[in-house]
Amino acid sequence: MDEVPGSVGTSASLALRLGQTIFSSASLLFMSLGVPFYSYTSFCFLVTIMGLVIPWSFTLALIDGYSVLVKCPIRRSGMAILVMIIIGDTVLSILTLAGACSTASVADLLMKADAPYCPSKVCSRYQLSATMAFLSWSLSLASSLFNLWLLPHI
Amino acid sequence: MDEVPGSVGTSASLALRLGQTIFSSASLLFMSLGVPFYSYTSFCFLVTIMGLVIPWSFTLALIDGYSVLVKCPIRRSGMAILVMIIIGDTVLSILTLAGACSTASVADLLMKADAPYCPSKVCSRYQLSATMAFLSWSLSLASSLFNLWLLPHI
Repeated sequence: MDEVPGSVGTSASLALRLGQTIFSSASLLFMSLGVPFYSYTSFCFLVTIMGLVIPWSFTLALIDGYSVLVKCPIRRSGMAILVMIIIGDTVLSILTLAGACSTASVADLLMKADAPYCPSKVCSRYQLSATMAFLSWSLSLASSLFNLWLLPHI
Repeated sequence: MDEVPGSVGTSASLALRLGQTIFSSASLLFMSLGVPFYSYTSFCFLVTIMGLVIPWSFTLALIDGYSVLVKCPIRRSGMAILVMIIIGDTVLSILTLAGACSTASVADLLMKADAPYCPSKVCSRYQLSATMAFLSWSLSLASSLFNLWLLPHI
């Protein structure tokens, strides 16, 4: 079995998972602390998705860390787990992209309206949150592609 | 070489491509005919992306139709073309999803605002356009996955 850098159980994968956890937590914090997000559907959607992405990435980061430390890759436990991880990553990355795009477009609209709905400080918080969600999406897509690449080699 | 239904050069693929062309044309028409789209960034983005998806899907529909008629699959012409088609499909499906999500969230916001920015007839046109873009995205994702499945068999 080949070793694909970035696939589950490698240190590159651990770095990707930690990045996802950090960026999605940052997105959640920028959105939910001190700014009103519950009056806009898109912002509520982003908060929900980030609440799913954080535990998923954190659990897989723990598994990768364990794999790297004891040098016993989870890949050896078979194809079913890898397929489950790939499906989870793909679905979550699609949802993260959807949430990030919705948030970015709504924040843009709120800022450009004739009578702006949000003070510029609040609007920049929304934009920062969308940026973090985009970064989390790109790492999530990378994880999913690396694992997909490993699939035919098992 | 196995025949994967839905991969390039089969009649299932022809059906998928025709579906993409029809849905993305419908999305473009609902958005651009008779409603003001140019004042919102998200709507302009959707129109741009649909302008890319329509020629791409139509060209590949022609190639599939030719392949089915003369029974000479394009797959035999090698891996490079298949990889190019997969990358194009993936990038366009990501962009279509982004455009559809932005349009849907902005249309939702415009409808729910205290002083609605659009009459309900115009708003429903925006929503229909977003729905068609989502349908086009799902078919585009299916095409991309079927072709990706074929890749290790070449």
